[in-house]
Amino acid sequence: MAFNDKILEKSIDPAVHQMLDRADQLGMETVWDRYEKMLPECGFGELGVCCRNCNMGPCRISPFEDEGPQRGICGATADIIVARNLIRMIAGGAAAHSDHGRDLAHTLLLTAEGKSGGYEIRDETKLAALAEEYGIPTADRSKEEIALDLARAVYAEFGKQEGPLQFTRRAPQQRVDQWHKMGIDPRGIDREIVEIMHRTHIGVDNDAVNLILQGLKASIADGWGGSMVATEISDVLFGTPEPVRSEANLGVLKADHVNIVAHGHEPVLSEMILAAAGDPALVARAEAAGAKGINVVGMCCTGNEIIMRHGIPMAGNFMQQELAIITGAVDAMIVDVQCIMPALGDLCECFHTRFISTSPKAKFPGAVHKQFNEEDALSIAREIVGSALDNYANRVPEKVFIPDEKTACMVGFSAEAIIKALGGTLDPLLDAIKSGAIRGIAGVVGCNNPKIRHDEGHVGLVRELIKNDVLVVTTGCNAIACAKVGLMLPEAAEDAGSGLKGVCQALGVPPVLHMGSCVDISRILTVCAAVANALGVDISDLPVAGAAPEWMSEKAVSIGAYVVSSGIFTVLGTVPPVLGSPMVTEVLTQAANDVVGAAFAVETDPVKGAGLMIAHMDEKRKALGI
Amino acid sequence: MAFNDKILEKSIDPAVHQMLDRADQLGMETVWDRYEKMLPECGFGELGVCCRNCNMGPCRISPFEDEGPQRGICGATADIIVARNLIRMIAGGAAAHSDHGRDLAHTLLLTAEGKSGGYEIRDETKLAALAEEYGIPTADRSKEEIALDLARAVYAEFGKQEGPLQFTRRAPQQRVDQWHKMGIDPRGIDREIVEIMHRTHIGVDNDAVNLILQGLKASIADGWGGSMVATEISDVLFGTPEPVRSEANLGVLKADHVNIVAHGHEPVLSEMILAAAGDPALVARAEAAGAKGINVVGMCCTGNEIIMRHGIPMAGNFMQQELAIITGAVDAMIVDVQCIMPALGDLCECFHTRFISTSPKAKFPGAVHKQFNEEDALSIAREIVGSALDNYANRVPEKVFIPDEKTACMVGFSAEAIIKALGGTLDPLLDAIKSGAIRGIAGVVGCNNPKIRHDEGHVGLVRELIKNDVLVVTTGCNAIACAKVGLMLPEAAEDAGSGLKGVCQALGVPPVLHMGSCVDISRILTVCAAVANALGVDISDLPVAGAAPEWMSEKAVSIGAYVVSSGIFTVLGTVPPVLGSPMVTEVLTQAANDVVGAAFAVETDPVKGAGLMIAHMDEKRKALGI
Repeated sequence: MAFNDKILEKSIDPAVHQMLDRADQLGMETVWDRYEKMLPECGFGELGVCCRNCNMGPCRISPFEDEGPQRGICGATADIIVARNLIRMIAGGAAAHSDHGRDLAHTLLLTAEGKSGGYEIRDETKLAALAEEYGIPTADRSKEEIALDLARAVYAEFGKQEGPLQFTRRAPQQRVDQWHKMGIDPRGIDREIVEIMHRTHIGVDNDAVNLILQGLKASIADGWGGSMVATEISDVLFGTPEPVRSEANLGVLKADHVNIVAHGHEPVLSEMILAAAGDPALVARAEAAGAKGINVVGMCCTGNEIIMRHGIPMAGNFMQQELAIITGAVDAMIVDVQCIMPALGDLCECFHTRFISTSPKAKFPGAVHKQFNEEDALSIAREIVGSALDNYANRVPEKVFIPDEKTACMVGFSAEAIIKALGGTLDPLLDAIKSGAIRGIAGVVGCNNPKIRHDEGHVGLVRELIKNDVLVVTTGCNAIACAKVGLMLPEAAEDAGSGLKGVCQALGVPPVLHMGSCVDISRILTVCAAVANALGVDISDLPVAGAAPEWMSEKAVSIGAYVVSSGIFTVLGTVPPVLGSPMVTEVLTQAANDVVGAAFAVETDPVKGAGLMIAHMDEKRKALGI
Repeated sequence: MAFNDKILEKSIDPAVHQMLDRADQLGMETVWDRYEKMLPECGFGELGVCCRNCNMGPCRISPFEDEGPQRGICGATADIIVARNLIRMIAGGAAAHSDHGRDLAHTLLLTAEGKSGGYEIRDETKLAALAEEYGIPTADRSKEEIALDLARAVYAEFGKQEGPLQFTRRAPQQRVDQWHKMGIDPRGIDREIVEIMHRTHIGVDNDAVNLILQGLKASIADGWGGSMVATEISDVLFGTPEPVRSEANLGVLKADHVNIVAHGHEPVLSEMILAAAGDPALVARAEAAGAKGINVVGMCCTGNEIIMRHGIPMAGNFMQQELAIITGAVDAMIVDVQCIMPALGDLCECFHTRFISTSPKAKFPGAVHKQFNEEDALSIAREIVGSALDNYANRVPEKVFIPDEKTACMVGFSAEAIIKALGGTLDPLLDAIKSGAIRGIAGVVGCNNPKIRHDEGHVGLVRELIKNDVLVVTTGCNAIACAKVGLMLPEAAEDAGSGLKGVCQALGVPPVLHMGSCVDISRILTVCAAVANALGVDISDLPVAGAAPEWMSEKAVSIGAYVVSSGIFTVLGTVPPVLGSPMVTEVLTQAANDVVGAAFAVETDPVKGAGLMIAHMDEKRKALGI
């Protein structure tokens, strides 16, 4: 099929082209249309110099010194306003991840107490390892006894008033010492987020650097706290991911099946949806309704969660959620929290799709709310799946249009799986890095954003990296983008430089390793910490770098902050709202090096972004003498 | 002196007129000038329809349906955006109050452990009462032992994951039941604030009502949690206020004394500044420097804290902080947190004034940072006061201009003091309400805001209320405004209606009772709960109302939310940024009645605002049959 430029320039994904063409034909609006309608976006907001933190305003600082106010009504300068806005974004992102971790901790608690409705402890090895980390005795104790102590300990990390957070101690001692020295070794997770909100209140913290330090502190509480809890406890409850093959893109929807899209973030919901969808009675009901079966597929991070533990196909990343509805083949879109467009409601009304919200924290216009709770998890999940089945009869065959696009992938490279693939020890990886076969490791993560051609930022950057012998580890929407273009197949080693290609072929792994959902960036931290500890250096000494080529969410801001705080140079592919303060911009891109041994760069061209990362790795290699 | 209209229209306070004239002469900028320069303020921000919660935007919804976007890029409508922005304001405000309460809890903890540098337990009666409330044994235990248990219990309120908060149980059972029914009985204080930040992240809660309910929940955790902890523990440590006479307005500065302005919020700092300023060695040093003594005065809520416990004069409210510097007579402006204008730094550079910040959470441009901690409290306070003394020599006499304006006041009406004034029981108050001598009780609170002529909103509304036999209880900047015009003298009963006048004269109290600082709105809640419980009704059945005639801070948004959530009709004198959503506006002003038995009204005319409150009281009286 040939599409006009207007469609082609929106995405590199042929499935998206087909669906945007279809949307045009049907006269339906998508996120790209709303983005165009919003242009030009407010310049004050883009620069970060708009302040709505009190009712004397709203204030905005003029970017031109001769024209318009240079201070807010309270006297706040652009520096102060930009820094406040930035760390409130961190607060939003850290809060999201932390609530995710909290929900997992709560589920483990209920499971250990025997009160949860269908969960069990699947990974006793990880349970024991975490118990040891927390100093919880394991000898002669049942897994429930151990899990109860562990659940209480991790649940307490959110509310405790004093530090440290246990998982921060996975970081090299030098790093912890530096955090301590800079006053950014976090106390309780919630406390650090709340302190951001206090400090950014009118008339509290009016020092950009002091504000940013608190932002970093809260972000560390996210990366080495809330997110890491989410990852680790998910593994305990649902199993630590191991390499598994599956498929990705909208073509995983099936015209002859009941299609359920699980969209959102927390496996607490999606695992039960899967369990319910496998219930023979419900499968029989689907068949009785004329379907060949129940096809659960994932979307966004829920997609990452269930593909890596169960090989369930992924329908797409953030920008594709509306397109899934427009296929007309989705009988239910089941969502929990985060990155779920409220636009879905209106779209679902144009089709038969049932839009089902489940979290008390997240309701949507046009959605049916079916509240989920862990105590009755499986029975609620059965009801929800049943509701999808019932809706199959309402599907209008002539409205169904599923693009014939899906790509095979190998996913599920948890830290444990990577070590296993390496033969049980990090040594082969360290040797490959030392020898230069692997030039460095890049963590490429983050969202989609209509400001960047869909998936081009992700794929362009990753391709350039592997071509230059950089091993890529990925999560979130970047992972989905890479899966869709085949970069998560061992055969993609052909696209890598000769060093990386050799390593991948020897190990039978792809050059781009899927590590999971957004919270699983904690897995990347854990690997970096382990590598640094093995080499006796700090993370900031390693030839590693991070990138978020198409980021858009506040979670990504928190992620960027904790990745940099962990000592990892990070390239952002969309411009953060900080340019209104040259001072804050300088702090983030330069001075941060003196504080945490790493900084940000902003580069909207993905190939150039990769170049910055490679140059950084070469510099670190040189310093290490390798 | 005669001033031009441009000055007269800015404030009703003659001290402000003089100082604005002085500022004009000196060519100095104040908050009023910055406000004028900011006009016109951004209409999208004013309406609440600007969203910066992700980096696809910034987005803004057009107020005109035919022109411009009706949805954000994610699909969020004006309703969603307005509700999200509103509850993020609640998060900011609740966080500020809660950190204040947390600091007090921490100070009590250190004091009980014998680790604090100068604090002691002053009110053992309150300590025992609170211990009983928390179920902490008191028999045969030292005050430190009791305090240790209490401190741990209140400190834990911030971080606990499940509810309830103990002080919420002061509310009538009907109220607690209603909160429970609506799902807004709060869990841990921090958790509720963090959940706001999560829910308002892109793609999470997209239901305006659901969002607002979470806002109310967090606000209850502020009013009946963080703020109430701040109040109660302050009383334990520094004494429960009792009626005391003092003075208010800039004329309390003394040309021949070392003048120290204590500005901000938390008594943890100001109590120690006072103690240090009373140190004979430091007084002698002041005298040796040629001063007649050390004159500590308060500003904003710190002013309220120290006037009510020590009779220390108040120099003014929020809009007067810059004017204090412009007197040229302030040797040190010592600040902690909240409502401190960053503009002070530049102003201090025009004078000799030393601007000293003390909180790790709040630094300011142009300030010297002298970090305060509870462990070494008194010795740090001595250093800070010493630094002020040293600066006296730098004062330039010809730059000194202190307006000859100060007014006597009687302050310090804690709930306990009110009951004491009533002869030990609420009965005389209940009888006066039943008889109609007192038509109702109004809590009038909140900030200053250049959108309203300074103090006119406060004083205009309060005068109208007392004229109509409404007893006024007040805190914060309203309290300072009332003190400055003499409404806090027993003689002001002459301005009250005959019923209220009789009651005040019989008891020897003013018609406007000073209850303290912003966090002390919790005292008003406690009194309302006690009255409701005594009558066997809910708070929403009482002839009471609230008002924030000149509010500007996020704390005020949280306060308004918890006051309404407590069942008290509340009038706002400046327009909150919600009008971009008629739906949210309707929820706040109407539908809230069905949820919490009270709602907001917005009325910028203070006399009309009082009228709404009086009409509400009359309605409640009728329903009660009195």
